[in-house]
Amino acid sequence: MVSMLLLGPTEDLDEEEVEETKTGPIEKDLGIIGLGPAGLTAALYASRSGVSVVELGLEYGGQMGLAAEIENYPGFEMISGIALADKMKEQAEKFGTKIVFGEVSAIDKLEDGRFHIKSDMGEFIVKALILATGGRHRELGVPGEKDFVGRGMSYCATCDAAFFKKKTVVVAGSGDAAATGTLALSDVGAKRIYWTSRSDYLKCEKIYIDRAKERDNVTILYNKQITEIKGTNTIEEVLFSDETSLKVDGVFAEIGAIPNVELADSLGVELEEGLIKIDDDCKTNVPGIFSAGDVTSKIVNPLMRQITTSTGLGTIAALSAVEYLQGLKIKQH
Amino acid sequence: MVSMLLLGPTEDLDEEEVEETKTGPIEKDLGIIGLGPAGLTAALYASRSGVSVVELGLEYGGQMGLAAEIENYPGFEMISGIALADKMKEQAEKFGTKIVFGEVSAIDKLEDGRFHIKSDMGEFIVKALILATGGRHRELGVPGEKDFVGRGMSYCATCDAAFFKKKTVVVAGSGDAAATGTLALSDVGAKRIYWTSRSDYLKCEKIYIDRAKERDNVTILYNKQITEIKGTNTIEEVLFSDETSLKVDGVFAEIGAIPNVELADSLGVELEEGLIKIDDDCKTNVPGIFSAGDVTSKIVNPLMRQITTSTGLGTIAALSAVEYLQGLKIKQH
Repeated sequence: MVSMLLLGPTEDLDEEEVEETKTGPIEKDLGIIGLGPAGLTAALYASRSGVSVVELGLEYGGQMGLAAEIENYPGFEMISGIALADKMKEQAEKFGTKIVFGEVSAIDKLEDGRFHIKSDMGEFIVKALILATGGRHRELGVPGEKDFVGRGMSYCATCDAAFFKKKTVVVAGSGDAAATGTLALSDVGAKRIYWTSRSDYLKCEKIYIDRAKERDNVTILYNKQITEIKGTNTIEEVLFSDETSLKVDGVFAEIGAIPNVELADSLGVELEEGLIKIDDDCKTNVPGIFSAGDVTSKIVNPLMRQITTSTGLGTIAALSAVEYLQGLKIKQH
Repeated sequence: MVSMLLLGPTEDLDEEEVEETKTGPIEKDLGIIGLGPAGLTAALYASRSGVSVVELGLEYGGQMGLAAEIENYPGFEMISGIALADKMKEQAEKFGTKIVFGEVSAIDKLEDGRFHIKSDMGEFIVKALILATGGRHRELGVPGEKDFVGRGMSYCATCDAAFFKKKTVVVAGSGDAAATGTLALSDVGAKRIYWTSRSDYLKCEKIYIDRAKERDNVTILYNKQITEIKGTNTIEEVLFSDETSLKVDGVFAEIGAIPNVELADSLGVELEEGLIKIDDDCKTNVPGIFSAGDVTSKIVNPLMRQITTSTGLGTIAALSAVEYLQGLKIKQH
């Protein structure tokens, strides 16, 4: 014990702490952008393969992190998105992945083929990249929408449902997110939920429709496209294109995601229909850059953007990146 | 209670039992062949979508079922293959999937486009099929091999390791299965494990090599190709192509899997390099037949045959099959 105490502070640092005292960027083999299931699975697989990994992102768990109740991820009868993200994160960290909660502002390709990641939580130099940047909520694009964000306008029913107990709300959207959002609002005891689809059908899993129909406080309306949101301090009324209107306290827009392709685009990564174009090995057109999850062209159908498909692609992206890194080693010797 | 007792046996039957008293084949919307992670995930997704599902297979959990310790399935730090299969099975059954432990002898395509599944546990007529038939162990193909099956010759170290406590064995293979098999044999206290690769490298995850090198009872040998297995009642000696030999009590061949494509082939499903050819939506060339998991052309690299990639493809196959079934309904009306 005495000898331990006599050690100076620098001798006592472990590898990670030493790195953080450096002034320049931290070097790692692989950088992963995104903290959803694709990125976390890629981190697990890559770090198990013996490569050093830094994984950066702001939205913990990605879109999965917003789900209050998941019952279609094989192995868990029921788990929250954050609880599942915690398990995936701990697994990746166990094998050495460094997780950084930070916003990536830019990634530059260096002349030696490596990538320079700039974030508000430090800079990193990596030899290979996996872009698992997922998507962000799509906006309605109607008058009034921006004015009421945080005052009745929400893009995440599972996040904000609890604020709408005994309130009347409109949910816009026909997919799984709109469905589970409607049920979440019903569960917390919203007075009335008008679940509205722009078209004459709902494209979510059928089981959700069955459940919604059993709820006394849910009304499903078809062919209802929101054209304006009105109110004073908070939302009071929603207008539709069929010239009807509803008096409501809140609007939940659950109308899908916009893929986060800005970083990919800045690196010269080829897109296809607005998604990162990858082959069966999750390779992009840029050597050393791989991609996985909802942001990729492998999952065009929004219904197929599931945790399972993201973990599958995360696995493939990681193993492809590891193979690429092994190839770099061979070239150096 | 009295009224219950007065009910005759037939009135007391639930839907499933009634079906089994029919003499003809049982009709379901979707038939899934295979009980591995691809098939079980497909069953979970399809039955949640409201279609009726029968899933048939003999090998519970598929190749996953043979794994004693899984630590790369996101969400579980450590779980056995059977325990994970149990969880997936219960999830699928919760939504109505009927699981049948039986051997499928033949599937015939009927004139009306449906499929007739014949098994030793009953016959089924389904409107769509998902083939998730996975693979079976590959044999060494050397003299002596067949003679000693069950008497020292094994194809599943994680199944049979316990029989080789204090024994000396050879493990043949360079992939993850050989690696985890070697570690399993080391764990149970085999006297010595010679882990042999045919080439000058191992292609498993690096973490397994690191672990094997730390074990006192493991010796890794490269460029060792088995040419003959000798013994009297049980295995006594293994000969290699470099004219060396080893005195051993057992041989574990962990040299990969042969895809189970016989049923697919009989249905006219197109193959590619011996695997079922599918597109990004898990469709085969035959309308109504989908495929997922290790048996498909989407996963050519054996390293990428993981539980995650199988659950991802199982999800896609199920959602595609559900879409196909919805299309059939529209045609009928």
